[in-house]
Amino acid sequence: MAAPQRSLQRRVWALLYTGGKDFTWGHFAVVAVIIASLVLLAVQTEPGLDPDMRRRILLLDAVIPVLFGAEFLLRVWAAGADRTFSGPGGRLAYFRQWVVVFDLLAFLPELIVLLLFPEVWATARWVRLFRLFRLLKLFAMFPAFREIGQAVRDAGRRLAATAAMAGVMLFSSAVLLYVVEADAQPDAFGSVPRALWWAVATLTTVGYGDVYPITTLGRIAAGFVAILGVGLVALPAGILASAFAERLGPRR
Amino acid sequence: MAAPQRSLQRRVWALLYTGGKDFTWGHFAVVAVIIASLVLLAVQTEPGLDPDMRRRILLLDAVIPVLFGAEFLLRVWAAGADRTFSGPGGRLAYFRQWVVVFDLLAFLPELIVLLLFPEVWATARWVRLFRLFRLLKLFAMFPAFREIGQAVRDAGRRLAATAAMAGVMLFSSAVLLYVVEADAQPDAFGSVPRALWWAVATLTTVGYGDVYPITTLGRIAAGFVAILGVGLVALPAGILASAFAERLGPRR
Amino acid sequence: MAAPQRSLQRRVWALLYTGGKDFTWGHFAVVAVIIASLVLLAVQTEPGLDPDMRRRILLLDAVIPVLFGAEFLLRVWAAGADRTFSGPGGRLAYFRQWVVVFDLLAFLPELIVLLLFPEVWATARWVRLFRLFRLLKLFAMFPAFREIGQAVRDAGRRLAATAAMAGVMLFSSAVLLYVVEADAQPDAFGSVPRALWWAVATLTTVGYGDVYPITTLGRIAAGFVAILGVGLVALPAGILASAFAERLGPRR
Amino acid sequence: MAAPQRSLQRRVWALLYTGGKDFTWGHFAVVAVIIASLVLLAVQTEPGLDPDMRRRILLLDAVIPVLFGAEFLLRVWAAGADRTFSGPGGRLAYFRQWVVVFDLLAFLPELIVLLLFPEVWATARWVRLFRLFRLLKLFAMFPAFREIGQAVRDAGRRLAATAAMAGVMLFSSAVLLYVVEADAQPDAFGSVPRALWWAVATLTTVGYGDVYPITTLGRIAAGFVAILGVGLVALPAGILASAFAERLGPRR
Repeated sequence: MAAPQRSLQRRVWALLYTGGKDFTWGHFAVVAVIIASLVLLAVQTEPGLDPDMRRRILLLDAVIPVLFGAEFLLRVWAAGADRTFSGPGGRLAYFRQWVVVFDLLAFLPELIVLLLFPEVWATARWVRLFRLFRLLKLFAMFPAFREIGQAVRDAGRRLAATAAMAGVMLFSSAVLLYVVEADAQPDAFGSVPRALWWAVATLTTVGYGDVYPITTLGRIAAGFVAILGVGLVALPAGILASAFAERLGPRR
Repeated sequence: MAAPQRSLQRRVWALLYTGGKDFTWGHFAVVAVIIASLVLLAVQTEPGLDPDMRRRILLLDAVIPVLFGAEFLLRVWAAGADRTFSGPGGRLAYFRQWVVVFDLLAFLPELIVLLLFPEVWATARWVRLFRLFRLLKLFAMFPAFREIGQAVRDAGRRLAATAAMAGVMLFSSAVLLYVVEADAQPDAFGSVPRALWWAVATLTTVGYGDVYPITTLGRIAAGFVAILGVGLVALPAGILASAFAERLGPRR
Repeated sequence: MAAPQRSLQRRVWALLYTGGKDFTWGHFAVVAVIIASLVLLAVQTEPGLDPDMRRRILLLDAVIPVLFGAEFLLRVWAAGADRTFSGPGGRLAYFRQWVVVFDLLAFLPELIVLLLFPEVWATARWVRLFRLFRLLKLFAMFPAFREIGQAVRDAGRRLAATAAMAGVMLFSSAVLLYVVEADAQPDAFGSVPRALWWAVATLTTVGYGDVYPITTLGRIAAGFVAILGVGLVALPAGILASAFAERLGPRR
Repeated sequence: MAAPQRSLQRRVWALLYTGGKDFTWGHFAVVAVIIASLVLLAVQTEPGLDPDMRRRILLLDAVIPVLFGAEFLLRVWAAGADRTFSGPGGRLAYFRQWVVVFDLLAFLPELIVLLLFPEVWATARWVRLFRLFRLLKLFAMFPAFREIGQAVRDAGRRLAATAAMAGVMLFSSAVLLYVVEADAQPDAFGSVPRALWWAVATLTTVGYGDVYPITTLGRIAAGFVAILGVGLVALPAGILASAFAERLGPRR
């Protein structure tokens, strides 16, 4: 009896793992379910949606955490086909992997809410944030994503230094504009936290246009801040990009 | 009789092909016609245009797909001067090139509409989109453009990973802002698809200013999204740029 | 009696300096105080703050320059444990380091205002700008920040050339738009300094949307300016980023 | 008599040229005059300026083209100290240099208007554009600026290809948005030239917010355009930056 079961375990293992290097049909199915579930998530928030339709979507949506839970159990069981994770010690080693945390987060929080408070699950808006955790499965599955994490670590010191610089720039800009513009526009620049909203919108160059200086002094200050700061806030991304480019190599 | 014709074919071939490496007078003529046709396209949409003028422009515009059709036939015929494409097997080989698809798309769809439904061709706005296909001829003609395509393939894995990250960021930001801002601004953030419009405008740093968070929580969430996400959405372009720079070499 | 004191001096020295290469508990304490003081700075500007709370925050805030002053004296004393800075000549050498200027700026200006004009210190908005000098301590403490300064010097000539180009572009754009748009919008483009505000907002791509050309000629000019200039104004940041990336090395 | 004159010529030559590699006092004087003249230019456009003050500024401003004309004559004369440019053939060689064109443009057009139509010079707004030509002197003087021009030539083919791509993207986006949005917003998207204003503002990420799509289809189209196009329009600047970085070397 042991041989066929082991053989089945092996085949499931091949479908779900294969070293994480190739794109298997198991990968494809999981990605398809994640994308479908995100489309469902987007559609069900539309206020103009037919209530009947919404109920059917909610039912479909409730299936997904159950599905991912089942996939997780299958994955744990199939891992036994790998020598590293067979035997009781192996099981423990499996749960010590950090990808398991991502796999668990992808269904467990939502499943708990769904089972214990189905009313909350169906109506509360914040529960939908849990569904974003499904995206974490992608990071657990594809090595390319994991290399993003490693690129962050590679560029660690540079990234930390430029991110701190960006933070200093954001805060200093907010204080500066608060000092020069607070009297003219108390609503938009009347306190440092308020001026921070302007600083974020300006230094990321988003520039919604809901807040901007109107006094001459404020515009001079904002002009200097914009010219100096725009590059600074873009630095961490540039450093991350080059670290990432180095890691993945030029031609793959 | 064969010798002079072959000689003519050779001369037309030299004019239209020459290995695609140099800029021939044939290239120049095609580029001039494309640019002229785009100017015509732009001008004829002006509502203040004199109706007589519009009629004359339309007539001129109708000539272009016919011209490009003729150029295509000439190109097919001249290709016979090249050994690879002479003989019946060569003709087939010619049509298997993917640049031929671009050459065909540049005139065939519009020519079909022009011949079968001249009324639609003259008035329907969406037909004008077909005229953009003329720009595809540029890609077929200049090797530098083709190298863009190859740069995309070079950076394939990196590009796919960062593009997926950008997609995840866009969607997650939209869900987050929908959760925190939907009550305050149901029109702008009342559903995930609506919040996606905000997310695109913010993370590309366009920031039109038609939608932006107004609650304190929404601004905090938007601030974090902007600082983290702005770099992420710019990553694919940076990666493509370095792949492209590598391919074309530093000094040519 | 000399031995134990020297030993204490040595231990304080180890806490505050250690070659600047590692993160000591002394570093941690200073960073924590700086961040806490900035949070206090931001909170106390909120107009809705309870007056009692504000008074308590102000008291806490007054402690910080005193604290940093004490830290500075401790630092000067502890520096004696380092051979380079022991003896009267060493003391002088210590004060010739430029990091000392940063350390002094971090508390001295504010301390002077606090002691001489406590009323001004408690109410004047511009005094809060002095508290930003506390951030300079970070530059004095962490070598990674100092390397930013060195990256600026490395890229010196390139940085100066592109910054000058950016300045030329900003000014020229302002004059151009002033010439073509002043009649249509005297408030926004009626003089070169006014048009400069538009130029800064456009070329940094912030684009608040408070000023933009409305005439056809103005839009054509602004379009050319935007396409050409956007890259130019971003060049210095790109050059700085690559100089910084080179200096810190790829993997640390 | 010849010897002392030659000696003077040599000294003027040393002041104005010195191989263009070092920053001489002659350089410094010219840069100071240029910057001062630009400040004058900016100030005199302020509508609130005292008429008396404006008259004095105008007088000062009239001196500058005369000054630059004198500097040009001095420069031509001093060039004789250089063997290459002495003798009648050398004079001709001097005027064949392209930096001479910049030197001439810096004062000649304005001087002509000033001498022939002093009324126009004093009042017409477009004459002020001529004063921007003074900035061209900077390019003639500093080798670092000339290297920008060489970087453009180095990156020639790549730059042309990406600039053409950016042009194609801009035009195609405008046609696309015109097709989907013209009915809903005839003023902003009613013709391709009008939609081009939107395309420029969006793809450079300036995003003033004066025009943006309001229909669902228009927003979907604009979203795709923004995500794809933003990187494309930034590519030429990135390519130019890397060419420029290569040319100036890492540490100078």
